Amino acid sequence: MFDFTFHNPTKIIFGAGKEALIGAELNAAGIKKILLVYGRNSVIKSGLLDRVMASLKAGNIACSQYGGVDSNPLLSHTRDGVALARRDKVEAILAVGGGSVLDESKAIAVGALSDEDVWDFFVGKEVTRALPVFTILTLAATGSEMNGNSVVTNGETRQKYNISSPHVYPKVSILNPELTHSVPLNYTAYSAVDAIAHVIEGYFTKEPGTHLQDRLVEGIIKTVIETTDLIMAEPDHARARASFMWTATLALNGLTPAGIGEYNFPNHMIEHAMSAIYNIPHGAGLSIVIPAWMKWYAARNPGQFERFAKEIFGLDSGAAGIAALEQWFVTINSPVRLGEVKIPAADIEEIAENAEGLARQWGIGGLYTRETIAEILRLAV
Amino acid sequence: MFDFTFHNPTKIIFGAGKEALIGAELNAAGIKKILLVYGRNSVIKSGLLDRVMASLKAGNIACSQYGGVDSNPLLSHTRDGVALARRDKVEAILAVGGGSVLDESKAIAVGALSDEDVWDFFVGKEVTRALPVFTILTLAATGSEMNGNSVVTNGETRQKYNISSPHVYPKVSILNPELTHSVPLNYTAYSAVDAIAHVIEGYFTKEPGTHLQDRLVEGIIKTVIETTDLIMAEPDHARARASFMWTATLALNGLTPAGIGEYNFPNHMIEHAMSAIYNIPHGAGLSIVIPAWMKWYAARNPGQFERFAKEIFGLDSGAAGIAALEQWFVTINSPVRLGEVKIPAADIEEIAENAEGLARQWGIGGLYTRETIAEILRLAV
Repeated sequence: MFDFTFHNPTKIIFGAGKEALIGAELNAAGIKKILLVYGRNSVIKSGLLDRVMASLKAGNIACSQYGGVDSNPLLSHTRDGVALARRDKVEAILAVGGGSVLDESKAIAVGALSDEDVWDFFVGKEVTRALPVFTILTLAATGSEMNGNSVVTNGETRQKYNISSPHVYPKVSILNPELTHSVPLNYTAYSAVDAIAHVIEGYFTKEPGTHLQDRLVEGIIKTVIETTDLIMAEPDHARARASFMWTATLALNGLTPAGIGEYNFPNHMIEHAMSAIYNIPHGAGLSIVIPAWMKWYAARNPGQFERFAKEIFGLDSGAAGIAALEQWFVTINSPVRLGEVKIPAADIEEIAENAEGLARQWGIGGLYTRETIAEILRLAV
Repeated sequence: MFDFTFHNPTKIIFGAGKEALIGAELNAAGIKKILLVYGRNSVIKSGLLDRVMASLKAGNIACSQYGGVDSNPLLSHTRDGVALARRDKVEAILAVGGGSVLDESKAIAVGALSDEDVWDFFVGKEVTRALPVFTILTLAATGSEMNGNSVVTNGETRQKYNISSPHVYPKVSILNPELTHSVPLNYTAYSAVDAIAHVIEGYFTKEPGTHLQDRLVEGIIKTVIETTDLIMAEPDHARARASFMWTATLALNGLTPAGIGEYNFPNHMIEHAMSAIYNIPHGAGLSIVIPAWMKWYAARNPGQFERFAKEIFGLDSGAAGIAALEQWFVTINSPVRLGEVKIPAADIEEIAENAEGLARQWGIGGLYTRETIAEILRLAV
């Protein structure tokens, strides 16, 4: 165990129909005017936006709407949202959507209270304040509903970078698992990969010996696999959708890394470079990177890979555990090779160059250079 | 999965020497005058109180001291603390000690802002506000450092009752695991029993089928057993003491019951009755009640008892799992029979009568009557 600070003040309200509480929650926080951010038309067609607006109206909350968030949220769209939030002098941001909508909403919340360009905060400027963020989640995957992270892509520079700040933890996040029943199975699979990715980065890159945290991670992975398999067989399996949703939240809310000491996010780093260039779904990129990275990294932490194989799959070698995870990705139809998402092997150098910039920003440029990143990616050809 | 709200805003600062930060944390919260509550002389002898006072002085925090909290904190002492907090117009309570000191501090925080007798809040009056509570933990067991619970004993009526309120979550809790190295092995054992008790109440009394939460509980129990065994062999085993401390916090911070639906605390109920009458250590009472209650209850939820046996001990029947847990309590020298703490079988009726009052207050008087509680206790003779 290493020193740590854990402080996650987000209030989670979990259950069917709970979006009806948003007006009351905003009222309780003394908020009278918001910017409601969403993505595509699905929240309109499903009737969710109408239900949210009804709750806001009942709470006498004035509301500007801002739709069109992309699945890899773009800086240009974020900047326009910042301008709108400033123009309308809103007091809070309400995100209605999946992780992309939440991430862009957090960025808008930061930008709205600053005179600087919001991208400055993604390339090093410290976040010192933000408008309060409230969320209604429609897709379980990123954990953004209960953490201080925001990832946005700068389309001009092709940089997919992030903010990480205590100021953008949502005040309240409403999780209605029924809203996720209509998530297509391919995106459900990508979400499962993302949740697993969030916990295994720390699990494999930390020092061994923090068994409590290992067990929390293993419990999360086993539950993701179990519930995803149930959902693949029966997409509106209520218990599985609900359990999956809460598991994805716990996978990146600060619980599993508390006390593990130093760790890092090499798989996310490489995937961010991939989807910055190719705009592929984050989870689809991760299921390609993870098996390749595991094969490359396993010899650096063999005991932990053996533990993973045994605890998750009941297998007795690290290599067998990696193969089993890769095979499970195949089973849920998430890609495991670059060719499956039409990334030619010839582009590996370009991805590696992009990822190298992130590696330096994240302080892991020693191990992860253009050369080693390319080496990892070649294992995914 | 069932509907739930999860909101745990306590900031945890974990690590050696972190008590030196208390002055800065109080300053950050704008607090200038506190009541420092502690128990016996051990915090003085160890030098901890001096270090805390130095940090307060550096932060220009005025401080009244109030020692003498009992290991089962008493209402009479709590009332005097409330009077002192009111007289000195303190702005916060700082608890320096174990769960008992924290629990009494929370009660003082509630009483200080009310004109009513503080006991009213233990017998049904709703808590609507409290002074902010800060804690420096010296014994890992109760989880009070990260929850809204406070248990106090009314010596006159022999009622050991509780407050449960969002208003008494500590603002900041400082966990320095080195402070626990000197905890005697018998109290370490009682603490281990307490942490296990906190998670198994929900695990066994909820409906089966919430596997994520089952896995979190199993991870906590396995870690408690593993680290306690290490500590018994080497009392200042730093890694084990640290891991034990954080595990005990997670055992009762709202994480494991989130989403499990209805559950209850029959073991705590019976033990509170026992220690209200006999003033035995809470964990010692629990290790007597738990195996008896498990034997009595197992047929009501056989699948979960089989799961427990398999996951925790690798055994294949519910009865074998119960026997293994009881045997582990014996191994760590925590009592498993009433006679070991000098409670005669003839007193069972009196304990059952006391517990029945709690059963009614907690809404489980249907299953837990004077008769069934006595039946359970007779299995501990």
